Amino acid sequence: MKIAVIGPGAMGLLYGAKLSRSAEVVLVGHHPEHVREIRECGVTIKRGEAETVYSVPAVVSGEVTDPVDLIILFTKAYLTEEALRQNRSMIGPETMLLTLQNGVGHEEILRKFTDEVHILIGTTAQGSYRENSHVIVNSGLGDTTIGAIAQTAGSAEKLSGVAAVFEQAGFPCVISDHVRQAVWNKLMINASSSVLSGVLQQAQGYVVANAYAWEICQDLIREICDIAAGEGCSFDPREQIERIRTHLQNAPGGYTSIYVDIQNSRKTEVDYISGAVVRAAQKQGKSVPAQTMMVRLVHAMER
Amino acid sequence: MKIAVIGPGAMGLLYGAKLSRSAEVVLVGHHPEHVREIRECGVTIKRGEAETVYSVPAVVSGEVTDPVDLIILFTKAYLTEEALRQNRSMIGPETMLLTLQNGVGHEEILRKFTDEVHILIGTTAQGSYRENSHVIVNSGLGDTTIGAIAQTAGSAEKLSGVAAVFEQAGFPCVISDHVRQAVWNKLMINASSSVLSGVLQQAQGYVVANAYAWEICQDLIREICDIAAGEGCSFDPREQIERIRTHLQNAPGGYTSIYVDIQNSRKTEVDYISGAVVRAAQKQGKSVPAQTMMVRLVHAMER
Repeated sequence: MKIAVIGPGAMGLLYGAKLSRSAEVVLVGHHPEHVREIRECGVTIKRGEAETVYSVPAVVSGEVTDPVDLIILFTKAYLTEEALRQNRSMIGPETMLLTLQNGVGHEEILRKFTDEVHILIGTTAQGSYRENSHVIVNSGLGDTTIGAIAQTAGSAEKLSGVAAVFEQAGFPCVISDHVRQAVWNKLMINASSSVLSGVLQQAQGYVVANAYAWEICQDLIREICDIAAGEGCSFDPREQIERIRTHLQNAPGGYTSIYVDIQNSRKTEVDYISGAVVRAAQKQGKSVPAQTMMVRLVHAMER
Repeated sequence: MKIAVIGPGAMGLLYGAKLSRSAEVVLVGHHPEHVREIRECGVTIKRGEAETVYSVPAVVSGEVTDPVDLIILFTKAYLTEEALRQNRSMIGPETMLLTLQNGVGHEEILRKFTDEVHILIGTTAQGSYRENSHVIVNSGLGDTTIGAIAQTAGSAEKLSGVAAVFEQAGFPCVISDHVRQAVWNKLMINASSSVLSGVLQQAQGYVVANAYAWEICQDLIREICDIAAGEGCSFDPREQIERIRTHLQNAPGGYTSIYVDIQNSRKTEVDYISGAVVRAAQKQGKSVPAQTMMVRLVHAMER
């Protein structure tokens, strides 16, 4: 299987490097300098005491001219469309597009480049952070959950093929008939405590430790549950509140990507996190004032 | 006229010192050390090149035992009740209580200490900031607007007496039959751009310069107009939005007290600013999600 991994950040490098053991992988980056470093140094994955160097082909966006079997998207959400446009030559009639990006609604962009039979979405519970341009720490193991947005006989077969390659590479992979539920389940934390910890510029444990922050967080969770229901994903708000409370209490010192992006005056992915909830709400004719406020506050803090 | 000014902060010192020229004034403070400094050094008011030292009697809360004619409250809003409790001996059957504090709803606390015939409310357009415990800069001149919450023949006479003393002391004073309108008019800025500049930790000009912040600010203004209407104060939201836009553009570098309090990890007056809008909304059976969010965010940022 020929796989292109677009977006050589912490997650892209992790998947690209490990998948190179079970498939023919190319990493596709935006910055020539970064691509050169990956080519010259390979990708180093640290896990506990272990350190493994993977030699993985890497190219600058637009350099791959032939269609591949699978494109995995790990770019920042707001760069997806531009990245696919630059790499349109990789997308043939049989190419599958898989997004494992944070947030929801990425398939709307993918639809501009292929039909829905060729679109896979999913989530990952792997953790990864970068030490530098080509060295990452694989900080968490966990399932990769994937599914088709249009369930056909063909898509089931494609999914099995992708899952097999993931499993061979060491990524436990779950095929879900209801993958949207998994995606909204992950969004539940990202669009509540994660975004709020960014707005407050506090570690995520503060969200549950401070009574006022926790009130806001619960409102955010309730709004997500309401909108998820309209998208066919059912969640019990009380269960979700308890789940997120436990999650925050177990890792109070954690910093979310929105926190880090704001801290570094970088553009965040809020439009695909809280913003995706707001867009779904608009489609459903509902109002989500707390989510709307988070989107505006984060943008106002991005510079 | 015997006047006690409770709360010797920047505004309390300004009014206490200047009123001592036209009335018998005592400053009432909470911290013995601060009171001692005022006693020993007097109060210095700087205005442009001019510097005037006023010798004003000062006591610690509870030390004045006889009723006065007028008590002017300049404490932090959340300290009003405790301050009046400590100085209950100053409140006789004829004592008038006047609040010139920021925000709305202070009369609810004053009602616990006297009947409504003896309560005056108002706003001030004077500006003042402290250089140290007893030196202030009178940074802005402007009207003091006062009015009674219960309009009776007696209250009209009392108001004229107070206004005359203010005028003699150099404070242009307006008696308003509809003083609530003036109070809500001032709240319009405090509970929109001022609180938001605190949440964003930016100078107030940022609120109009950043498109997302300005969206939030406009929502806050619309909510205040809606609730003010329910309190019998009529404002046109478009006019208010334009007024506040101009205000921010004219003084973009200004920092609000909520900004400064958050910056210094101090308790803010948000409960009497945005919080007062939320309480009035609850009374009216209305929802003000943006105001509610501001209250919670500010409290979450206060530590």
